[in-house]
Amino acid sequence: MLWFTGLSGSGKSTIAERVHAELERRGTEVEYIDGDALRSVFPTTGFTREEREEHLRRTGYMASRLEAHGIMVVASFVSPYRESRDFIRKLCRNFVEIYVSTPLDECERRDVKRLYARARRGEIRNFTGIDDPYEPPSHPELTLDTRSSSVDQSVAQVLERFGDYF
Amino acid sequence: MLWFTGLSGSGKSTIAERVHAELERRGTEVEYIDGDALRSVFPTTGFTREEREEHLRRTGYMASRLEAHGIMVVASFVSPYRESRDFIRKLCRNFVEIYVSTPLDECERRDVKRLYARARRGEIRNFTGIDDPYEPPSHPELTLDTRSSSVDQSVAQVLERFGDYF
Repeated sequence: MLWFTGLSGSGKSTIAERVHAELERRGTEVEYIDGDALRSVFPTTGFTREEREEHLRRTGYMASRLEAHGIMVVASFVSPYRESRDFIRKLCRNFVEIYVSTPLDECERRDVKRLYARARRGEIRNFTGIDDPYEPPSHPELTLDTRSSSVDQSVAQVLERFGDYF
Repeated sequence: MLWFTGLSGSGKSTIAERVHAELERRGTEVEYIDGDALRSVFPTTGFTREEREEHLRRTGYMASRLEAHGIMVVASFVSPYRESRDFIRKLCRNFVEIYVSTPLDECERRDVKRLYARARRGEIRNFTGIDDPYEPPSHPELTLDTRSSSVDQSVAQVLERFGDYF
């Protein structure tokens, strides 16, 4: 399981989607799970700590069952709490935590989805980085810095290190 | 996906476990999901309508993703609400609803887990059949009557009709 974590707008989904597409092209049986997409299936999921953690635990459980049947999982979630990421790590056989470490000021500068602007105006609450915490991984298997590496370079780095890992 | 629904103590898990074991023995890639077992992974899940439905929708989504990768799913859940079962039906490619129709008085007479006695004493709330509703399937693909059929007969019936369905 390749678990991408990082702030909103850090670039994690862009990289994860590319990794997923490349694995699929190679014939790997692989599932891609994206935080935003999954929330659209479960629209009542809120953003309190409790709701976020439950959402992540459920996702992690699903991933672990897919993995148990030999399906590789690529997941992209803000997943701000160390506790929930560690819960998922314990469930999975192979948990690779990939920290997309783009700092807040850079994510906010890019603000692709205009969410930071809205969070700053108070139109969105519990927004990670603004009025909700992000706990960086203590020992991620890989850290990607999108300021110094291009998307292509990041994708290549993930595939080189973990593309045959499973 | 073989989805067993019925009251607590109806015998659905006994039949579903046997079906799962037999499919596995035949070499089918199959996952078994049981309501009680899953609740032990997510112990904070309550029994209000809202919590039950969310729990079932999450389970159904997981099952549909497993199914999408060619894994057959056998699931045993009280799943009392038509709405949540229909939600899962829509997510899945092949949804086979198996109604284990053992009536309340018979489930209560057996009361294998002593749960009906506790529900009658008010020690358990929101207990399906006692102080919470059970909505029987309107058009189940199969109905099993455990009063007139043995476990062996029920298992055989499921496998004969749906063992090669996927």
